[in-house]
Amino acid sequence: MKLQGKHYRTIWLDEADPRIVRTFDQRHFPFEIVEEPLRSCEDAAVAIEEMHVRGAPMIGATAAYGLYLATLAAPEGAAGWAFLQEAAERLRRTRPTAVDLFHCIQRMMNALESAADREERIHTALATANALADESAEQCRMIGVHGLEIVRAISERKNGAPVNILTHCNAGWLACIDYGTATAPIYLAHDQGIPVHIWVDETRPRNQGGKITALELQQHGVPHTIITDNAGGHLMQHGMVDMVIVGTDRTTRQGDVANKIGTYLKALAAKDNGVPFYVALPSSTLDLNLRDGLVEIPIEQRSEEEVKYVWGWKDGAIQKVLTTPLESPAANYGFDVTPARLITGLITERGICTASEEGILGLFAG
Amino acid sequence: MKLQGKHYRTIWLDEADPRIVRTFDQRHFPFEIVEEPLRSCEDAAVAIEEMHVRGAPMIGATAAYGLYLATLAAPEGAAGWAFLQEAAERLRRTRPTAVDLFHCIQRMMNALESAADREERIHTALATANALADESAEQCRMIGVHGLEIVRAISERKNGAPVNILTHCNAGWLACIDYGTATAPIYLAHDQGIPVHIWVDETRPRNQGGKITALELQQHGVPHTIITDNAGGHLMQHGMVDMVIVGTDRTTRQGDVANKIGTYLKALAAKDNGVPFYVALPSSTLDLNLRDGLVEIPIEQRSEEEVKYVWGWKDGAIQKVLTTPLESPAANYGFDVTPARLITGLITERGICTASEEGILGLFAG
Repeated sequence: MKLQGKHYRTIWLDEADPRIVRTFDQRHFPFEIVEEPLRSCEDAAVAIEEMHVRGAPMIGATAAYGLYLATLAAPEGAAGWAFLQEAAERLRRTRPTAVDLFHCIQRMMNALESAADREERIHTALATANALADESAEQCRMIGVHGLEIVRAISERKNGAPVNILTHCNAGWLACIDYGTATAPIYLAHDQGIPVHIWVDETRPRNQGGKITALELQQHGVPHTIITDNAGGHLMQHGMVDMVIVGTDRTTRQGDVANKIGTYLKALAAKDNGVPFYVALPSSTLDLNLRDGLVEIPIEQRSEEEVKYVWGWKDGAIQKVLTTPLESPAANYGFDVTPARLITGLITERGICTASEEGILGLFAG
Repeated sequence: MKLQGKHYRTIWLDEADPRIVRTFDQRHFPFEIVEEPLRSCEDAAVAIEEMHVRGAPMIGATAAYGLYLATLAAPEGAAGWAFLQEAAERLRRTRPTAVDLFHCIQRMMNALESAADREERIHTALATANALADESAEQCRMIGVHGLEIVRAISERKNGAPVNILTHCNAGWLACIDYGTATAPIYLAHDQGIPVHIWVDETRPRNQGGKITALELQQHGVPHTIITDNAGGHLMQHGMVDMVIVGTDRTTRQGDVANKIGTYLKALAAKDNGVPFYVALPSSTLDLNLRDGLVEIPIEQRSEEEVKYVWGWKDGAIQKVLTTPLESPAANYGFDVTPARLITGLITERGICTASEEGILGLFAG
C-alpha cells in the first residue's frame, strides 16, 4: 500500500545491506514517517515489545525477520542452535496475546532445525521469513476478495449509497505486511468504485485507530470519520453503521476472538441493533488448541502510563500530556475476548465461515 | 464535599459582594483549582456552553444563578421582564440534552413572573436559585441514602470484600451542588466504613471521568482505578465489577436514560454479564413529556476538536496535543440513550424504582 504516494510493505530487507531489516517506527504515525533499521534480534524484540510495530500479522513477521537477524550473529553448530533457541525465547516473551508471534517463531525454528550449517541457517531463515511475509500479504489480499462480496451486497441493497463500516483499532496494512485484514475488503471496495465510509474508533489507550487507521485511509483517499470509542453504540442505534469489521489477535477453535480491548463492547452493540459483525481472520491467528477464549486466552496488561498520559503532536514534536490526577492509579488491559455468539462471520483467506468449530474446521481442517 | 481539605459547594454567592456568583472553572481540574466569578447572565451562559461547569444538576443551578444575575442588570417593569425573558432564552440555547436546565429556568421564570418590582425580582431570584441549589443537594444526599442499601447488600454478600463499582463520566459532587448523584451512595458507603473500589471510565472525549471523578475520589480518599472506556466489558466478563452506577441528563416517562456517550455500551455489557446497572436519578432530570428516549431526546453534537485533540498537563500548564491526522474529520456525539430494558433500577431521592412508567409514576406521580 502507499504512504505519501510511495508503495511500501511494512517490513523489508535493506536494498543495500542484507544485514539490515527495515520497518517503520509506528509510534511516530501519523505525524511523522520514521523508518527504523533492525540490526539484531534484540532490535526486533524491542520493536515488538515497545510497539514500534504492532498488529498480529506484523508482530509475527517481525519476529521471523528477528530470527533471520539472529542467524547472522549465531556461531556454527550446536552453539549456534542454542543461540537461536535463546533468540526464539526472547521473542516469545515480547507480547503474550497474538498467536501469530508463536506460529511464526515455530515455523522458523522448524525450518532452521534441519539446516546443515551456519550458512544454510542464514539462507533458510531469510527465505522462510520472506515466505511468511508473502503468505501473510496474500492471506490479506484473499480476505479482501471474500469480504468485498459482503460490502458489495450491502451497497446494492442501499442502491449505491455509501456503506458505513465501523472498525476498531488498526487491522490495516500497517498491522500486516500489506492490504490489512479488516481493511482489505474496504480497500478493494473503494478501489472498485463501491462507495464506503469508515467510522474509525480512536481506540484508547494507544489510539491506533485515530492515529494509524485514519492515516492509512487518509493516504488512500477513503472517506472516514474518527469517533471516540464511546460513540459506536449510539451510531448503531441510529442506523448509521451498516457493518462492523475488526481484526483478531487470536481465535479459538470455537470461534472466540481476542482483539483490542473494547471490541467486545462493539460486538454487543452490533448484536443489539442487528448490525452484522465480521472478524477478518487470517488463519495465522487461529489457535486450534484453545476452545473457551474467555478462560484460555492470556490477556496482556500494559503500563498504567498509557492510560494516564496521551501522546500527541505539538510544536513539531511528539509530546505527552497527563490527563488524570498524578496520584490516581490506572489499569491497562490490552485485549478483550468477543464470544463467538456475537460474531456474524469470520472472513478468512479461504472464504467466509461461521464463528464455530464447524465453520472453522470446514475451511481449515487438516 | 472537600477539595484540599476545604468544604465547598460547586456554586455559591460571593461572601463579600452579592453581585457575584462563584464557581469553579472545571476545565482546569484535576491540575489546578480555579475559582471563576460570574458577574452577569452572559458569564453564566458561557460557563455552561463552554463547559466550565457541567453535569445536569450543576447546569441547572448555574442557569438559575444566571437569571439572578440577570435581575441585577434588568430595568424596572415590563422592559425588565422582557430583559429576563431574553436572558432565559440565551440560557436555554446553551446546551440541548440535560433537562435540568429547562426545569430550573422554568421554575425561576414562574417565580419571577409575579414579582411586583425590580427589587422583589432580585430578592425572589436569589431565594429561588438558593432553594433550587439546596433542593438539588438534598436530592443527592437522599439518593445516597437509598443507594447505600444496595452497596451494603453486595458488601454483605461478599463478606466485606471491597464492592467494585464502575462509573462513567462524572456524576459526582462537582456535577451537582454537593454529594453527586452516582457518587452519593459511594461516598456514604465509604464514610460508613463499607469497603468500595471504583472503576473510573476516563470518558472520552473530555475525560470527565479520568479528570474529575478521579479527582473527587482521590480528594475524598476513596480507592479507585482509572480505566479506558474500552475496558469495562472485559472487567465485567471476569467478575471484576459488582455493580454499575451512572448519572443521567434526561430520563423519559418509560425510563430511557440519556447520559454521557458510551453509557449504553456499559449497560449492554452489564446485561450480558448479569451485573446490576443502576442510574442515579434526581427527579430534576425527569422529562415526563417524553416516552421513547431514542427517538425523542435531542443529542448534542460538539466540536470535532474535542476528539482530535487531547487537553492535558505538561510543564506546569494545560496544553493540547493533536492525536489524529490533521486532515481526518471527526464526529463528536455528546450523549447516548440507554433503553429502560437494560437498567436494573433507578435510584431516586424518593427511593429505588424500576426503569418504567409504572416505577417512575409510582414515586413521582402528581
